Amino acid sequence: MVTAPNAWLAAIAWNEAGLVPVVTQDATSGEVLMLAWMSRESLSQTLQSGDMVYWSRSRNALWRKGETSGHFQRVVELRLDCDADALLAKVEQVGGIACHTGRRGCFFKLWDARMRDWVITEPVIALDQPGAFRE
Amino acid sequence: MVTAPNAWLAAIAWNEAGLVPVVTQDATSGEVLMLAWMSRESLSQTLQSGDMVYWSRSRNALWRKGETSGHFQRVVELRLDCDADALLAKVEQVGGIACHTGRRGCFFKLWDARMRDWVITEPVIALDQPGAFRE
Repeated sequence: MVTAPNAWLAAIAWNEAGLVPVVTQDATSGEVLMLAWMSRESLSQTLQSGDMVYWSRSRNALWRKGETSGHFQRVVELRLDCDADALLAKVEQVGGIACHTGRRGCFFKLWDARMRDWVITEPVIALDQPGAFRE
Repeated sequence: MVTAPNAWLAAIAWNEAGLVPVVTQDATSGEVLMLAWMSRESLSQTLQSGDMVYWSRSRNALWRKGETSGHFQRVVELRLDCDADALLAKVEQVGGIACHTGRRGCFFKLWDARMRDWVITEPVIALDQPGAFRE
């Protein structure tokens, strides 16, 4: 059987904007670092370079994670889910900081049932991130 | 300061369809089980009941995980990310099976760089899931 050269790309159920959500997990600790989005081009570049390249919906541009902060994400493994509409990337997080706020990961607001609100639980590791922006 | 009773709900950056993506992680093993979506109502019901209640985009309906399969997801903790546009739920997965294919989790297709394709790595634990459907 001959498959089209980009069958692996066509296998993904891209949404109406041509994107797919990506869960990024620290390959060593198992911590979920962030959720972001990829386009066909960013996934292709990710596989080619071995570094995570997302699609920034706010900037409408390819976003090589770490290109301004130095906090690259080296791909350890990449997985697709049952419905082919979500990716899971296990990465080595360079510098140990994935979040633009200077925290290890982005999920630093915990639901507090007593307060009935979100409370910040994770410390800022690095202030004044070089080139940090709201991605 | 008096905050509106539903300020915690308004704090979330719901997308144009009124949904937010949710990463669901096994609280014990750290395995990322699935990615699904929640509406305001499903998040409210999740917090009220302590079991994960998603919004099924294919069925356009509230979806109490496990209501047909028995594989409920008990909420251990719930987190919101920096941009408030993604949730992370750590859960206790009843029955140890989150995926409708009868696998532990949904991310069972691994990128194989040599094959240049997705290859299935995880075994089916339970065949003939009661009430299984493509959620």
